[in-house]
Amino acid sequence: MDSSLTLVIFGITSNLAQIKLIPALYDISEKNLLPNTTHIIGVARAPQDESWIKNYFHQTLHLENKHHQHPISEDVLSKLNDKLNYMNGQLNDLNFFQELKQKITELGSTNTIFYLATYPDLYKDIFDNLKKVGLNEQTNGFTRVMIEKPIGEDLPSAQRLNKLLAEYFTEDQIYRLDHYLGKETLQNILTFRFGNGTFEPLINKDHIDHIQITASENFGIGKRGGYYDKVGALKDVGQNHQLQMLAFALMDPPSEFSNTAITKERTKILKNLQPIPEKVVFGQYEGYQQEENVEKDSKTDTFYALKTFINIERLKDVPIYIRAGKNLKETVTEISIIFKTPTNRLFQHIDCGKDPNVLIYRIQPNEGIVLKILTKKPGHTIDLDDSYMQFCYRSSNELPDAYEKLISDAIRGDQTFFNDAEEVEAQWKFIDPLVKTKTIPIVYSSKSWGPKEADDLIKEDSREWLEPSMMFCNI
Amino acid sequence: MDSSLTLVIFGITSNLAQIKLIPALYDISEKNLLPNTTHIIGVARAPQDESWIKNYFHQTLHLENKHHQHPISEDVLSKLNDKLNYMNGQLNDLNFFQELKQKITELGSTNTIFYLATYPDLYKDIFDNLKKVGLNEQTNGFTRVMIEKPIGEDLPSAQRLNKLLAEYFTEDQIYRLDHYLGKETLQNILTFRFGNGTFEPLINKDHIDHIQITASENFGIGKRGGYYDKVGALKDVGQNHQLQMLAFALMDPPSEFSNTAITKERTKILKNLQPIPEKVVFGQYEGYQQEENVEKDSKTDTFYALKTFINIERLKDVPIYIRAGKNLKETVTEISIIFKTPTNRLFQHIDCGKDPNVLIYRIQPNEGIVLKILTKKPGHTIDLDDSYMQFCYRSSNELPDAYEKLISDAIRGDQTFFNDAEEVEAQWKFIDPLVKTKTIPIVYSSKSWGPKEADDLIKEDSREWLEPSMMFCNI
Repeated sequence: MDSSLTLVIFGITSNLAQIKLIPALYDISEKNLLPNTTHIIGVARAPQDESWIKNYFHQTLHLENKHHQHPISEDVLSKLNDKLNYMNGQLNDLNFFQELKQKITELGSTNTIFYLATYPDLYKDIFDNLKKVGLNEQTNGFTRVMIEKPIGEDLPSAQRLNKLLAEYFTEDQIYRLDHYLGKETLQNILTFRFGNGTFEPLINKDHIDHIQITASENFGIGKRGGYYDKVGALKDVGQNHQLQMLAFALMDPPSEFSNTAITKERTKILKNLQPIPEKVVFGQYEGYQQEENVEKDSKTDTFYALKTFINIERLKDVPIYIRAGKNLKETVTEISIIFKTPTNRLFQHIDCGKDPNVLIYRIQPNEGIVLKILTKKPGHTIDLDDSYMQFCYRSSNELPDAYEKLISDAIRGDQTFFNDAEEVEAQWKFIDPLVKTKTIPIVYSSKSWGPKEADDLIKEDSREWLEPSMMFCNI
Repeated sequence: MDSSLTLVIFGITSNLAQIKLIPALYDISEKNLLPNTTHIIGVARAPQDESWIKNYFHQTLHLENKHHQHPISEDVLSKLNDKLNYMNGQLNDLNFFQELKQKITELGSTNTIFYLATYPDLYKDIFDNLKKVGLNEQTNGFTRVMIEKPIGEDLPSAQRLNKLLAEYFTEDQIYRLDHYLGKETLQNILTFRFGNGTFEPLINKDHIDHIQITASENFGIGKRGGYYDKVGALKDVGQNHQLQMLAFALMDPPSEFSNTAITKERTKILKNLQPIPEKVVFGQYEGYQQEENVEKDSKTDTFYALKTFINIERLKDVPIYIRAGKNLKETVTEISIIFKTPTNRLFQHIDCGKDPNVLIYRIQPNEGIVLKILTKKPGHTIDLDDSYMQFCYRSSNELPDAYEKLISDAIRGDQTFFNDAEEVEAQWKFIDPLVKTKTIPIVYSSKSWGPKEADDLIKEDSREWLEPSMMFCNI
């Protein structure tokens, strides 16, 4: 890339910047994916001297090395240092934005990206001020804005935010980031399904019995009570991550590899979700109300499970069971496609167990794809064994972090793995009615798989939740 | 099993008995799969004292431990010893059969199996003599006869042998043994295809581009020249092993797990082979004519490659390429199903290489099933990688030897994995016309994949032979 870039990060001292953005910038820099002339301007409130940001990046990268998992090269860091600038300012202060504009002009880049690592309630001030100084315009190059999920907290607020964004930017300038969309394991589903001729013929109601999506964590909310207690499991991971997973696993073949085509197909799945799911269960882990910054009589869901359908002909009447929660038995995110038992009668005299064939997209950990099959048990009789055909990433270290990929995509101008306004609103259209059905959540024990009612939800259909296996791709 | 058994092995000193039957009897004995009262009568020409056979088994098992691959337990051997009897005799000598009958009567078993580990030219004498003394009859129990492939050396001789057998035995008494039918890896194809719901939907002309069957050895004929020079590659492995492989991989779903149903479906595939294959190439490895016991101007094929079709609607116009030979680059036996490139256009801008999807049944070595797929190469671009989903047997040691399984099947009276007369004749009906087209074989270099003309045979169709990977299931 020849064109120059200024990347402005509002909130450079935020948790997000420390844990995700700074490591991602380091990795992008190491891989020479930044334009030759790149300037990074970190913005925060505290006045600091010129060299502060270099030390801050240095410290952050070494501190956060556990997220980063490979040694920091001083050479790469030094090159990254040369790009770093720091400005302090209040984001509701027009004067600051005038200084910012002057700084950007001095740096002389044709292209600008604004990354809003701030609370959403600051967005309007930032947009207003950017507009007042003319920084939202695209003149010679591009101007892009990156904001984080969640987009809104329900359909009306998401619509308001999208409308607000549209006042300042065109849709091609807006990068709504849900880091799940940047995950290799999710993006690989596209390749797996549409790059191969052997799986897609099975992804339909003729062959699929049902689908399960699990996103579980074996830990609680930690210090995130202030945020989490207002949000809960359904909005925290259901509205975004899990619906994205569903869309990747089940969307129709896009007509080409383009943002428009792929986002359109994802959105189509979301728009065709049965509006009010047949069943839903909310749970709260024992002791949640005693967590830091949580209301003492909190009714926030730390677990949910639901059953729904996608109303497209290909998937008609295929039940979809989704669950997510905190303080559960395992930390695992996966999509399981449970296939029908074969109709031929060759092995009907043998007990083949339940669910002989399951295709598992393991999003994390032990990233990979697993196909459960029956094979003949070696020996003198025709007995059958559960076996597993596995594709595993050699190690999760080789997988670029989602932020690294998505920031790089935004620099390249590729919106394929970002949400557009329509997609986000389709997600909320499904979630809002669910939220309205919410009653007092059922308390469940830590390290369980949630309340018994979540088991009943699927057992009523003579099915059961699959126990995620930690054996797969345990490299 | 309560009923008693006498197992008579004609040719107890044969190579087959030493390498296969005696180790198999040991294994069956170790697994307690012999009827409680079992007598084994080994028959050979040389007079020996009573204890000779015990020493012979002992020595053979220790010598052949390399085939056998697990420690010999003296305890098991001692129990096996108690069952052993030896008789010397000429197989064309009626007196000997009278003695044999007397011996069997003395031993008092209700059931008898005659295993003919002899040259086929002795069969008629044996059958005649068995009949003359009434040993072919089934009175209280069963009387079964086991003979080895090849059944005949062409269609007329196979028909003659089947007719001969029918004069003495009913079809349910006759166990025509092709040890390939006893291989776990071949039998597992049934489970893989019909026990699962995820593969069979693909085994048809809509999804398959073509099929390849390879049976290659990286060594020459060794000391087998006397036999091999009369037979050649096509008759040695093509007529039997490779056609069995083809039948397992492509047969229609049998209506139930029974000998009748499964053998019928295998035979249907063989009967529907295009009678005169489109193309065939014969080869002979350089230096073959100098091998021991080979004619100096031998025209015997040590390699062949052919293209054919199966004329059933499900597989209409799906080309089948078969090759086998000696002194080739690798020792490997496998069936590869090469699927069509997917029709959707998502990845058409990317070079996906040839044959993105291949299902490989690896019969030996590194036994397993492998599905070649395309996955996304981890990183910032949408590049694709060949990847492999594998089901591997943990080690080939855990797989019972084919003879062990088949002898045990014969004792249980299960003919599923034996050839019936019709199946063998169907094989010859396909092979005979091919043999008639045979010209002087093309000389090829050792450690190659055969003559260039074999490559051309498939290249003319814009395809190529897959290089068998020794990486799969290399445990």
